[in-house]
Amino acid sequence: TGEWSKKAIKEARRFGEVNVAASSEDRQFTYVPPQSSWKRSRDAAYLHYCANETIGGVEFGFTPDAGDVPLVADISSNFLSRPVDVAKHALLYGGAQKNIGPAGLTIVIVRKELLGRARAGTATMLDYKVHADADSMLNTPPTWAVYIAGLVFQWLKRQGGVPAIEERNVEKARLLYDYLDATAFYTNPVDRSDRSRMNVPFRLPDAPLDEPFLKGAKERVLLQLKGHRSVGGMRAPIYNAMPIEVVRALVDYMREFEKSHG
Amino acid sequence: TGEWSKKAIKEARRFGEVNVAASSEDRQFTYVPPQSSWKRSRDAAYLHYCANETIGGVEFGFTPDAGDVPLVADISSNFLSRPVDVAKHALLYGGAQKNIGPAGLTIVIVRKELLGRARAGTATMLDYKVHADADSMLNTPPTWAVYIAGLVFQWLKRQGGVPAIEERNVEKARLLYDYLDATAFYTNPVDRSDRSRMNVPFRLPDAPLDEPFLKGAKERVLLQLKGHRSVGGMRAPIYNAMPIEVVRALVDYMREFEKSHG
Repeated sequence: TGEWSKKAIKEARRFGEVNVAASSEDRQFTYVPPQSSWKRSRDAAYLHYCANETIGGVEFGFTPDAGDVPLVADISSNFLSRPVDVAKHALLYGGAQKNIGPAGLTIVIVRKELLGRARAGTATMLDYKVHADADSMLNTPPTWAVYIAGLVFQWLKRQGGVPAIEERNVEKARLLYDYLDATAFYTNPVDRSDRSRMNVPFRLPDAPLDEPFLKGAKERVLLQLKGHRSVGGMRAPIYNAMPIEVVRALVDYMREFEKSHG
Repeated sequence: TGEWSKKAIKEARRFGEVNVAASSEDRQFTYVPPQSSWKRSRDAAYLHYCANETIGGVEFGFTPDAGDVPLVADISSNFLSRPVDVAKHALLYGGAQKNIGPAGLTIVIVRKELLGRARAGTATMLDYKVHADADSMLNTPPTWAVYIAGLVFQWLKRQGGVPAIEERNVEKARLLYDYLDATAFYTNPVDRSDRSRMNVPFRLPDAPLDEPFLKGAKERVLLQLKGHRSVGGMRAPIYNAMPIEVVRALVDYMREFEKSHG
C-alpha cells in the first residue's frame, strides 16, 4: 500500500521468500486492495501489512483476515489513534514518534508463543525473547522517551482514552475530507474508504501554486504542510496531538486561498 | 576485563570463533592484563577491548597495539572523558548515556574501508554502511537525544574541550584514590595503574556498615553510591558532569564516617 510496505518487502526479501499478496501500485498506492483480491500463501510464516501509509495517506479501515497465518502489523503512524484488535495480531510494532512520544522509542506487542523463534544468527539486540526476558531493559532504555510516553498515556486517559480520541480523529479527518470533496480546486487521490485519519495529502490545481500556498500557511503558523518529496503536493498531519481548532483554521485558510487563486 | 567484555565475548561467539587474548578473571577483574601476556590471533578479524569497565572500575590507560588487526573499542563509559587516538582504532562505539547525553543514542566511529563488509544476513538496522549512506538518518533519529548531545558538546568546548576535562577528571579521581590509599578503613581492589577515572568502587570494612554509610550519604545528597549488585560494596560515579566539589564533599563524608565508625 505504499512506501513503508515497500521497505518491509525489501527487508523481508533479505531473509526469505516474499509473496506480495496484494498491491495498489497500479494506481499509485491510492487505495487498499480489497481482501477478496489478495493472493495469500497458506503456508506463510506471517502476513504483514502497514496499517497507515503516511506518504500516500492510505489507512486500513479493517483488520485483515489472515486465517491461521500470524498477522503482523506496522502501526507506527496510527498507534493509539483508534482501537486495535490486538488479539487478532501475532505481532504489532511501531515507532513512538507519531502519537506516543519522542523519536527513539519503539513499541512491540508480540504473542508469547512467537518468542524464542528468532532466526539463527539474529543479533541479540533484535531478538524479542531476550528483550522480553529482560523486562525491556536488556540495555539502558531511552529513559526520557519512556517517561514522556508515560505522560502522553496519562494525557490520553484524561481525554477519555483511545475510543474518545478516535472520535475526535474521525471528526478532524471529516472536516478536511468533506471540504476536499466539496471543492474542485484541491484534490485528494485516495479512495474514500481507505483515507488516512492521520495524514491527509492533497494537491492544488497547479504546482506553481504550492509555494504561495505554503507561504500563506506559514504566516498563519500552519506548518509542516509540504508533501513528502517522493509524491509532492501537500500533506496535513493530523495526529492525536493536533487540536481540531487547527484543522478548522487550515480549512478556513484553504477556502480563503481558493477564493483568491481559484 | 569485566562484565562488559564478557558480554562482548558472549555475543561474538554467536557469530564466529573467539580467542580471549587475555583475561583478568583470575583476580576478579581488578586489573588490565599487561600486553606482554596477551595471546593474540594474528589472523583475527578484529581485536576488541572495553576501554572502561564500569562495574569493576578498571580502565585502560593505553591504546592496545593490535598490529595489523583492526582495533575495536567499546568506549561507552569513558567517551569524551580523555583524548582517544581515533586513528589507531578501526571502530569505536559507545552509548551516549555517560558523558554525552541521554540514554537512547549510540555513537559509532568506523573506518570507511570497513563499511560494506557486514556479514550476510545482517539486519539492515545493524549495517553501518546503510546508516553511513543515509547520513545517520536511515530511520527517524532520536532527535531530542541528538539535540541534548549537541548542547553537551557546546558545554564541553566551553570547559576547554576534552584535554581540559581530562585534567579535571584526573584531579577528581586523584582526590578519591589518594584518600582510599591513605586509609585502612576503605579499600579499592584495583591495581593503581588500571584504576578507572569514571567509576571508583570501594568497600567498607564490614558489609553491615553499608546501610548506615548509604543513609548518611543520602542525607548529604550524595546519591547513586551503591555498587553494582554483582559485586556489592560502593561505587562512586564521577563522569564528566560530576563537579569536583561533590567529590570533595564525598571524601569529607567518607572521612567523617570513618571517624565515627572506624
